[in-house]
Amino acid sequence: MRPRKWKTLTSDVAYRTPIFDLHRRRSLHSRRGEHDFFILDAPNWVNIIPLTKANEVVMIHQWRHGIAEFTLEIPGGMVDADDPSPMHAARREMIEESGYDSDKIVQLGMVHPNPAIQGNICFSFLAKNVRQVEKPIALGNEETEVVLVPMSEIAELIATGAIMHALTIAAFSFMHVYNPPPHRKVAKRYRSPRRKK
Amino acid sequence: MRPRKWKTLTSDVAYRTPIFDLHRRRSLHSRRGEHDFFILDAPNWVNIIPLTKANEVVMIHQWRHGIAEFTLEIPGGMVDADDPSPMHAARREMIEESGYDSDKIVQLGMVHPNPAIQGNICFSFLAKNVRQVEKPIALGNEETEVVLVPMSEIAELIATGAIMHALTIAAFSFMHVYNPPPHRKVAKRYRSPRRKK
Repeated sequence: MRPRKWKTLTSDVAYRTPIFDLHRRRSLHSRRGEHDFFILDAPNWVNIIPLTKANEVVMIHQWRHGIAEFTLEIPGGMVDADDPSPMHAARREMIEESGYDSDKIVQLGMVHPNPAIQGNICFSFLAKNVRQVEKPIALGNEETEVVLVPMSEIAELIATGAIMHALTIAAFSFMHVYNPPPHRKVAKRYRSPRRKK
Repeated sequence: MRPRKWKTLTSDVAYRTPIFDLHRRRSLHSRRGEHDFFILDAPNWVNIIPLTKANEVVMIHQWRHGIAEFTLEIPGGMVDADDPSPMHAARREMIEESGYDSDKIVQLGMVHPNPAIQGNICFSFLAKNVRQVEKPIALGNEETEVVLVPMSEIAELIATGAIMHALTIAAFSFMHVYNPPPHRKVAKRYRSPRRKK
């Protein structure tokens, strides 16, 4: 039996917080009737892998209140109302959180952080050849430290649980396997034999 | 300047829903003073890649209320209070949602779905040689359909956005690159030459 869509009847704010609102949505289904569902209403999110010319990832060591622990993540945050695009938001967050910048930015992919209870998307980007342009800004209540991690060690850090943020892992998985950015052209290793004249 | 820990002072339930509670947590920081943070209190989650002998992934086509769309995901859900372990919960969810089962289950990895606002962990598993043992159970208000997807097509489905659930992508990324399960022993392709007697 093919599953059928639900139709939203009404939606109201059950509770407001500074970073998301909790909505109660009344929905109707042709076979299942009317039910309430709770949804976190949050803006779209972004994250970005800032990569130096020496192939180091500029990462953030950061206190996270949800787990009440420090994490190792890539820069990221919310797309603000005055960000003209997710890419702009990602670059803004990278500069604010890490102090590094580059204008060579490509989109790697996008995910639903949690389609069961959130409607938003997290967009992932790669910034190539980043350079330190300013000091990171300690915004609001964020307690952060910038660390440089060789790209070659990222897979091992994820495999061993040193990096556990699902959205940081999603960004690296696009880079490593699902949507790797086009490789720069490099000098061929093997020259063709010269044609005889 | 090294970031410092926050200390939780008080925590109370701001709002209750059937699948998570919204907590308001008052925390103290030696440099930043006292502030409120909002946390989703949810049980740990699990998901599982059910793989048939023919190398097909048993996936779920499912309505998700957060995005108000259908998704393509692997089976998963909450670790219930009476589940003796996350692996048990993953197997239970696999049987309930897909009707497939196997006792060859290995853990692939674990992630924080969202360490900023949630304290819980999502554990990912792989079930090998699954077989259909019963019909999937349509629990509660879940509208689902079981589909078989060749494992060889998963990377392309993620790269093109047909699979967008961050936690499903995390599970596959462990399998593909970050924590691949040990390979089964297979017959060697090349026999060693017999030793001369």
